[in-house]
Amino acid sequence: MKIGILGYGNLGRGVECAIRQNADAELAAVFTRRDPSSVKILTEGVPVVHVSEITGYRDKIDVLIICGGSATDLPTMTPEYAKYFNVIDSFDTHAKIPEHFSNVDRAAKASGKVAIISAGWDPGMFSLNRAIASAILPDGADYTFWGKGVSQGHSDAIRRIEGVLDARQYTIPVPEALERVRSGETPDLSVREKHTRECFVVASPLADKAKIEKEIKEMPNYFADYDTTVHFISQEELDRDHKGIPHGGLVIRSGRTGKDLENRHIIEYSLKLDSNPEFTSSVLVAYARAAYRMNRKGESGCKTVFDVAPALLSPLSGEELRSHML
Amino acid sequence: MKIGILGYGNLGRGVECAIRQNADAELAAVFTRRDPSSVKILTEGVPVVHVSEITGYRDKIDVLIICGGSATDLPTMTPEYAKYFNVIDSFDTHAKIPEHFSNVDRAAKASGKVAIISAGWDPGMFSLNRAIASAILPDGADYTFWGKGVSQGHSDAIRRIEGVLDARQYTIPVPEALERVRSGETPDLSVREKHTRECFVVASPLADKAKIEKEIKEMPNYFADYDTTVHFISQEELDRDHKGIPHGGLVIRSGRTGKDLENRHIIEYSLKLDSNPEFTSSVLVAYARAAYRMNRKGESGCKTVFDVAPALLSPLSGEELRSHML
Repeated sequence: MKIGILGYGNLGRGVECAIRQNADAELAAVFTRRDPSSVKILTEGVPVVHVSEITGYRDKIDVLIICGGSATDLPTMTPEYAKYFNVIDSFDTHAKIPEHFSNVDRAAKASGKVAIISAGWDPGMFSLNRAIASAILPDGADYTFWGKGVSQGHSDAIRRIEGVLDARQYTIPVPEALERVRSGETPDLSVREKHTRECFVVASPLADKAKIEKEIKEMPNYFADYDTTVHFISQEELDRDHKGIPHGGLVIRSGRTGKDLENRHIIEYSLKLDSNPEFTSSVLVAYARAAYRMNRKGESGCKTVFDVAPALLSPLSGEELRSHML
Repeated sequence: MKIGILGYGNLGRGVECAIRQNADAELAAVFTRRDPSSVKILTEGVPVVHVSEITGYRDKIDVLIICGGSATDLPTMTPEYAKYFNVIDSFDTHAKIPEHFSNVDRAAKASGKVAIISAGWDPGMFSLNRAIASAILPDGADYTFWGKGVSQGHSDAIRRIEGVLDARQYTIPVPEALERVRSGETPDLSVREKHTRECFVVASPLADKAKIEKEIKEMPNYFADYDTTVHFISQEELDRDHKGIPHGGLVIRSGRTGKDLENRHIIEYSLKLDSNPEFTSSVLVAYARAAYRMNRKGESGCKTVFDVAPALLSPLSGEELRSHML
């Protein structure tokens, strides 16, 4: 299958690398809103094209992976390009998924294409595990923990504070909360009881560090509801020790079965990722394979991870899957 | 959906309990090879019927869950009853799955029914995770660990030894092996390095315990390739401390991504189950829902967990899943 990448940031670069790991996938073109001559990609011989020329590639691309942001890019881009291509995105604004789904579905049904939205790990793999685990254990409770990992949104929020030159924020699950859930308790956990936030901040030499720390800790939505730790470090330390974009987390279903619901069961799915965008990209490429196959079978419209039979994600045949994976 | 249960052992009883936890499912009948009057079930008003009369229930049952053994029951039962019903089984002889699939597929295609085989946790949920994780991370290695939990097959094997009155065998993952895999190493692990076996044995008063222990530890296939510990205990202790049928285990995919495969990722799926048969039963009922829906959409033939879109397992609608689970 021939894949197009729209947007060449961390995610787009991750998709390019993931394509190289999949023998049945081939990078056909990278589309950008920037000046194409300013964009240097890894793969030799593949054109970098201005997004204004994308419709000329309708017959050269089987699936377009849209690597844009959820805030402003994807709500317009995914329905727009579903008019011409099978598309995949990683739209992750949970509250707006139904609206996004409906817009993309309309476009993809009209064009006869398949669009898979919100692929990645949350939404994505975590969603899959929440849905399957709760179908298996109807009497129970779901818990999602994130981290330890870098939250780009929280890091950005700190950087916007006056006197801050750079910052990195880690989201960390509270070990005691995790232990309670794993032990089979089904506690009601507050936001504060589930996660802590740890910030590494580079302040400008003359900045008032106490003021910055206070501003971080009291920031509504981002930090006020959490126990937050702030460390001031040098730019050198930040670059040396906090350059990666690791992330991860876990989804736990704690449920009961039996005549009197006397037996407890814990289903846990966890991810430990060195690179958040590269893992997300790897999920996107697997779902690109599914979109391509579903469209070839005559399907169209918007889909999510819930609608995709797992076999469609794998390069292996049904026979191979049954022999080696079942 | 109206469900029939064929076979009323641990698994059949588990299915009966699981049906009570699912508002859209209803137990229609229990079929048995025993004298029906000797089988007492939990659910009031539901008939217990001799299996010889099962075809009379063709129009009264949407899905038949076949709760038989993989060694001798399921290879004949599942193809036989796929002639009349949508069927589900938990066939778990991994090496014989392709042959079983092909026999069941032939019968279910001829009758226009859907048959889902090898649903449960391994095969089943573990298979799903092996397939999806390896599709996401093509460069990597898979590890499956079982336990800590009771292996019925190994317990039975000990009970067949002369002088043994009762026995319970636990399969236990080796913590060091688990740690190596979780740390991102991709070691080649021998059978002995992955699991140990712990046996609790009730010997008859005059039995030669040293001889029993030697016979267990040297038993080919079952114990010879493992580090095995044998404890002799009283029947009272066995009944008091080892009455449950807990099990569990985990599937880990350790993979790499990036330009030079420099980033490591760990996907881990784990189960901790108080009751192995009740958890398996809960999976079977979720897949019964899928079989019923697939058949109503006009599908037929043999399917596995790889062929079932996750949404089909859930009682929630597409809208509900997208709003609450994505």
